[in-house]
Amino acid sequence: MTLSARNHLMGTIDEIQLGDVLAHVTVRVGEHEVESVITRRSAEEMSLKKGDTVTAVVKATEVMISKG
Amino acid sequence: MTLSARNHLMGTIDEIQLGDVLAHVTVRVGEHEVESVITRRSAEEMSLKKGDTVTAVVKATEVMISKG
Amino acid sequence: MTLSARNHLMGTIDEIQLGDVLAHVTVRVGEHEVESVITRRSAEEMSLKKGDTVTAVVKATEVMISKG
Amino acid sequence: MTLSARNHLMGTIDEIQLGDVLAHVTVRVGEHEVESVITRRSAEEMSLKKGDTVTAVVKATEVMISKG
Amino acid sequence: MTLSARNHLMGTIDEIQLGDVLAHVTVRVGEHEVESVITRRSAEEMSLKKGDTVTAVVKATEVMISKG
Amino acid sequence: MTLSARNHLMGTIDEIQLGDVLAHVTVRVGEHEVESVITRRSAEEMSLKKGDTVTAVVKATEVMISKG
Repeated sequence: MTLSARNHLMGTIDEIQLGDVLAHVTVRVGEHEVESVITRRSAEEMSLKKGDTVTAVVKATEVMISKG
Repeated sequence: MTLSARNHLMGTIDEIQLGDVLAHVTVRVGEHEVESVITRRSAEEMSLKKGDTVTAVVKATEVMISKG
Repeated sequence: MTLSARNHLMGTIDEIQLGDVLAHVTVRVGEHEVESVITRRSAEEMSLKKGDTVTAVVKATEVMISKG
Repeated sequence: MTLSARNHLMGTIDEIQLGDVLAHVTVRVGEHEVESVITRRSAEEMSLKKGDTVTAVVKATEVMISKG
Repeated sequence: MTLSARNHLMGTIDEIQLGDVLAHVTVRVGEHEVESVITRRSAEEMSLKKGDTVTAVVKATEVMISKG
Repeated sequence: MTLSARNHLMGTIDEIQLGDVLAHVTVRVGEHEVESVITRRSAEEMSLKKGDTVTAVVKATEVMISKG
C-alpha cells in the first residue's frame, strides 16, 4: 500500500500517554523526538506501547517552515 | 517567541518549487527529507532558497502513526 | 501496515486534475464524491489515473460535524 | 450558507463519547463509519446525541489517497 | 445549520488569486487580514469576488498559540 | 524567527481548560473569541494562564470560507 502523505519518519515509541479520547505518542526518530496526538482507540487497536517500531506520518500541507 | 507546535525539525532546504499559489519545499533533516507545502507568498516574503537553514514545524495533532 | 487515521473510504478515481504543485483528485465512494488535494509528486509517483481503485484517508481530528 | 469545504457526508450518529476537552463522534454514512473528533463544547452546544442526522464535513486538503 | 468548527470570523474579501487547483483568498476582519487557501472549484462555485461578505472558518484543533 | 503560517492574531487569554492530553485555550482578539486546542504539555511548558498576551497562529490551508 502506498499513501500520498509525503513524510514518513521511522522510529521507536519512547512514551505513550492515554487520555480519555486521545493519546499522546512520542516517537524517537534518530536524534529527534516526534510527538503525535491520535485517538485512544487507534492507540489501543494498534496495541501501541513503548519500544514499538513505528512511523510518524505527516501530509506535506501540514508542515510549516520557520527561518531565522 | 515560543510556539505551541510540538515538532521542530531543523535542516537545510534541498529544493524549492514555486507554483502559482503554493510552493513545495524540501528540507533535508539529517538522513530524512521533510516535504512541506506553504503559500508562494510566504516562500517569497521569507526569501526561501536552496541551502537556507530552516525548521520544519508540525502541530502534534497533524501527526499520524503507522505500524507493521 | 496499520495507520492510526480512523477514516478509510474505498472507491474509484473519477477525475484527476494536475496543477503545478498540487493535484485535485475526485474519488467515487458509493453514492458520494470525495475530493482530495495532494501533491502533484504523489499523484505522479503513485501513477494515479481515472478508474484506479484507491482509498480516501482522513484523520479523525480533521472531520467536523454539521447539524440542522 | 455555503462552505468551501468540498466533502459533506450525511449520516446518523452511531455513538458519541465525551472526553474532558474533546468528543469522539461516530457517524454512520451508508455502509461506512466516519469518525470525528471535535471539541466537547461543540458537542454540547449542538446537543449531539445518538440517532441525530448530521453531516461529516472535511476540507479537501485534509484528504489523503492510498493505493494498492 | 450549525458547524462544530469553533472559529468564525466575518469580514470582506480584499483579494482573491486563482491558481490552477487552489485559490488564495484574503479576508479583511476588522483590523486583521485573514488568509485562506481553498480549492479553485469552491472559489468559482461560490462566485467569490472582492468585496463579498464572507466568514473565515477554522477548526479549533488547527489553531496554535505563540507567546513571548 | 519568521514562520510561514499566514495568520497571526494577537490577543489575551480569556480562559484555559486543561484536559488529560489536550488543553482548550480561548483568546480574546478584539471583539472576537478565537478558540484553540493544543497539547496540555505545551500549555504547561509555556505556562499559559488567563490574561497572558499571546498570538493565535493558523496555516492558510486550514482556513475555510463560508458565504451567504
